Amino acid sequence: MKSILVDFDLLTGLSDERESVQRRLSDMDGMYADKDAYDAMIVRDDTLVYEFFDMGLPETEGGIAFGTSMTYPGKVGSEFFMTKGHFHSILDTAEVYYCLRGKGIMLMEDSEGNWEARELEPGLAVYVPEGYAHRSINTSPDDTLVTFYAFRADAGHDYGTIETKGFRKIVVEKDGIAQVIDNPKWKE
Amino acid sequence: MKSILVDFDLLTGLSDERESVQRRLSDMDGMYADKDAYDAMIVRDDTLVYEFFDMGLPETEGGIAFGTSMTYPGKVGSEFFMTKGHFHSILDTAEVYYCLRGKGIMLMEDSEGNWEARELEPGLAVYVPEGYAHRSINTSPDDTLVTFYAFRADAGHDYGTIETKGFRKIVVEKDGIAQVIDNPKWKE
Repeated sequence: MKSILVDFDLLTGLSDERESVQRRLSDMDGMYADKDAYDAMIVRDDTLVYEFFDMGLPETEGGIAFGTSMTYPGKVGSEFFMTKGHFHSILDTAEVYYCLRGKGIMLMEDSEGNWEARELEPGLAVYVPEGYAHRSINTSPDDTLVTFYAFRADAGHDYGTIETKGFRKIVVEKDGIAQVIDNPKWKE
Repeated sequence: MKSILVDFDLLTGLSDERESVQRRLSDMDGMYADKDAYDAMIVRDDTLVYEFFDMGLPETEGGIAFGTSMTYPGKVGSEFFMTKGHFHSILDTAEVYYCLRGKGIMLMEDSEGNWEARELEPGLAVYVPEGYAHRSINTSPDDTLVTFYAFRADAGHDYGTIETKGFRKIVVEKDGIAQVIDNPKWKE
């Protein structure tokens, strides 16, 4: 194959040349802890929660999938806007995120219950190790969280486990700051 | 393994937390076309040409090696400062570079003689496909070329072919602009 050149604006993360994948509140039914707050929000507006670019590269084990991810500011109840999060289908594949803008948390957990929360700020690179589901969470009141990501092109996404069970932890605003707390809906 | 958090300054690409790998003119003996210009420069100062961060991750096929690369402005004769360039030891592994600062060219060639030159400017991501040797070249008169890179952690580096043969093309300043021309020293 040939090389690829893509422009992702360093300030916004957006690209004029490609179409992003967009996830709205309605795509995340049941994923936020406060169902009443979710239901009240969605009747007003099916807000864009996050979007990302997927280059659609061939899923080879030597390729590197890459692009930018934008998570917008907002909360459902006290819980910050976030991506769905996913395991990789090939579980023992890692991913790296380089934060270009904003403020947030990369929440990670493996299938044995180990979890980590790492801060995201411009200039911070977070390495998500093999075997960890991961989710970007925007903890800024008003700014977009923008990251550049890279992982093995054949790794694949396994959203299923997370969509049904969620993560063990959630990130909420409490006493004016972002806090990682137990997910009240999570069941073994 | 655990997650990793590393700060690479978005403006300079540098990290206070890690030690970079530095390449000076003396590390690149024989790699620039104009030997007289090289010899004249190196007696004055063994200039830093480029540096990069290597996280030293385990070389697993599921891991992603990542870091920043800084190529400094300068020329040897009319030839712009550049990295050594390399094939991956596992040839069919790709690499992605996201340009954070500066201006340059990603020069690529495969073992069959196909080559490509892609511009690097802030916000441009260049995908180096499987099988291509690649080299970053700084074509700015005064600014550092900074990129964030990612590739498969076990891909390895094969510098040998490039160090002995060079690339088929070189990038020189001619009539005040950067031009890709045949490497006069390259032999089949």
